[in-house]
Amino acid sequence: MKFSYVSHLNCPKCNKIYDLHEKHQLCTCGSPLLVSYDLDELKKEFKPKDLLGRPADLWRYHELLPVLKEENIVSLGEGMTPLIPMRNFGKSVAIPNLFMKDEGIIPTGTFKARGAAVGISKAKELGIKELAMPTNGNAGAAWALYAARAGIKSIIVMPLDAPKITRNECAVSGANLYLVNGLISDAGRIVGQAVKDFNLFDASTLKEPYRIEGKKTMGLEIAEQMGWKMPDVILYPTGGGVGIIGIYKALMELLALGWIEGPLPRLVAVQAAGCAPIVRAWEERKAVSEFWENSTTAAFGINVPKALGDFLVLDAVYKTDGCAIAVDDPSILQEQRRIASMEGAFICPEGAAVFAAARILRKNGWIREEETVVALNTGAGVKYPDTVQVEVPELQRDEYIREGRR
Amino acid sequence: MKFSYVSHLNCPKCNKIYDLHEKHQLCTCGSPLLVSYDLDELKKEFKPKDLLGRPADLWRYHELLPVLKEENIVSLGEGMTPLIPMRNFGKSVAIPNLFMKDEGIIPTGTFKARGAAVGISKAKELGIKELAMPTNGNAGAAWALYAARAGIKSIIVMPLDAPKITRNECAVSGANLYLVNGLISDAGRIVGQAVKDFNLFDASTLKEPYRIEGKKTMGLEIAEQMGWKMPDVILYPTGGGVGIIGIYKALMELLALGWIEGPLPRLVAVQAAGCAPIVRAWEERKAVSEFWENSTTAAFGINVPKALGDFLVLDAVYKTDGCAIAVDDPSILQEQRRIASMEGAFICPEGAAVFAAARILRKNGWIREEETVVALNTGAGVKYPDTVQVEVPELQRDEYIREGRR
Repeated sequence: MKFSYVSHLNCPKCNKIYDLHEKHQLCTCGSPLLVSYDLDELKKEFKPKDLLGRPADLWRYHELLPVLKEENIVSLGEGMTPLIPMRNFGKSVAIPNLFMKDEGIIPTGTFKARGAAVGISKAKELGIKELAMPTNGNAGAAWALYAARAGIKSIIVMPLDAPKITRNECAVSGANLYLVNGLISDAGRIVGQAVKDFNLFDASTLKEPYRIEGKKTMGLEIAEQMGWKMPDVILYPTGGGVGIIGIYKALMELLALGWIEGPLPRLVAVQAAGCAPIVRAWEERKAVSEFWENSTTAAFGINVPKALGDFLVLDAVYKTDGCAIAVDDPSILQEQRRIASMEGAFICPEGAAVFAAARILRKNGWIREEETVVALNTGAGVKYPDTVQVEVPELQRDEYIREGRR
Repeated sequence: MKFSYVSHLNCPKCNKIYDLHEKHQLCTCGSPLLVSYDLDELKKEFKPKDLLGRPADLWRYHELLPVLKEENIVSLGEGMTPLIPMRNFGKSVAIPNLFMKDEGIIPTGTFKARGAAVGISKAKELGIKELAMPTNGNAGAAWALYAARAGIKSIIVMPLDAPKITRNECAVSGANLYLVNGLISDAGRIVGQAVKDFNLFDASTLKEPYRIEGKKTMGLEIAEQMGWKMPDVILYPTGGGVGIIGIYKALMELLALGWIEGPLPRLVAVQAAGCAPIVRAWEERKAVSEFWENSTTAAFGINVPKALGDFLVLDAVYKTDGCAIAVDDPSILQEQRRIASMEGAFICPEGAAVFAAARILRKNGWIREEETVVALNTGAGVKYPDTVQVEVPELQRDEYIREGRR
């Protein structure tokens, strides 16, 4: 058996084919490129039982990943994050079969580690020495750290407002970090210029084809963890949309391998009310989204006013009979507290958004009580500590606790 | 087969036996209690291959854990953290077979989750409704969150100086959190009084017997991840010492089961130069440590001037031909940066201490080049972001990156 069954790159817009041994960014038509595999050949040789006893990380699916040689893998043990039953919260919203896929339990504390692990491994395989990327924080932190492990230099540009902890992560990795007094779009323009000026690899979201493959493994893991019986609904917090695109790609590949059967889970793109371009497009049954002016939300990671892969996100939602839904910031922060106090998980606001969405979709009947639902939490709450207000009584050394506790 | 082969509690000092169906704290002689199992019976029925295909969390070892009924398990998917090769750093210090067991990749971001998961599960099984504990931060955060999941109320008391993020974790969980303008010893006194006044369960380190069982699973996992062939050396950052006590207990149980063979790995207790009571006792070949006056270190989690289980830590070090070693704060912070920039892992200062120790022990010949060494990182660096200095150039929206990057 081969280590990887990757065959080529293809453009989902104009169908142009690219050689996978060369460095590529976007298609000449401007679309992101996708990775293809010899699934017919793999189907004959690869069965679910082959996974038994493999390490609990995303490289257990190496046949379905783009890295040709095992020695090029750059790994910090990422993947196989827990799929946790949410019985208390689920009961309270009348979704008894509610699960959380917790992407906070991964190196760098967010799902961005998956894209970085596979993206950097492939960059290493392609001989890339230096890359640049704009970021809202977490992706930059993940790519900076994995790049350091691979011995690849990195330039990371993030807005001043990005979560402060991600600065520490970039700085400690030795990356060339720049803050910009502006938005991620300004960071993107600065990176674009640096890529040209210094002949760098552009690791911006979807401008390189391999991070989708890393994020795809969330879909593979959900399938394996549920015993290859898919849930009815998967909710995903959607900014750039690579996660939902990746999960949909995973489902299509598993269908082709015959490891799962239809109907596919209905995919739900969850956005913040202050930045909901995908939701607006879905409501108007459009194939692409429009730039969302003056976007704002406490869920910083999904503050993406126009995603390069919007057409792929919308396609995944339409093809699975899913939907797109926006939730407001007060609801997000309230669900974050509820999940912590009812389930013991301190999740990030982006993750809290999907629980707010699940509550609404159950209430309006879109989710039915008997359905199995998976909510993706994309990161650990400790990366955004300021979203939680702390008011704590302070005792002097000679004081004691009196009654009156909750 | 039974779910758990737990048999009773025993006192390692006076050998008194306790019934495991009752609530216990310390032995009447003042010693912590340990948990015993029917290892002879288990040996006949349980083999390493039985673990194949079990979920990648610490409950895969449920036969060796104290929870009698599966429905009492309170889990966030903790355990089976990655064991990562540290090739770049290892090469630089002439320990080519160096691995890191990364306890940052776990719910709540530190190894404290293991003790909390097993401790809270057992507390639930014993019908406990409310607990109290003093903490330097991370343990309190973990216990508060797991208690919330179990529906158990908690009182957490921590020094004002404890890492700020752990306040947010306690607060979001709904715990009754108190800050004390003092040290963990002051917090301990306040908790002691509250336990008496309000008839609470005392969850202070080693005052309940079950957190050791959770931490023991680090040893079980290292053994399984290395294919039941133990490393030559395991280095552990040692404050309260429950981790090293737990790992030693795991090794003894695996020996009794015949799953591993001697000689055991040499266990190294790593402390900070500003708080090194175990090191001093070991240097004087004593069986117990003495209170360390005016302790101070940036590695807040190992600032424990006198550990209740010190005699068990020292016993584990003596019995395995290990050693105890102190490292200073500048070395700790320097290794933290090195591990991030060479290996891509942003670890906590306590974890960085063990790499500083490995460097010294290799240089003085205590560790030999051909030996396999496992270094425990007890938590994620993002929980202590302030240990990393960040000086970052700031760009205006119309500026671009010039040459001069590293």
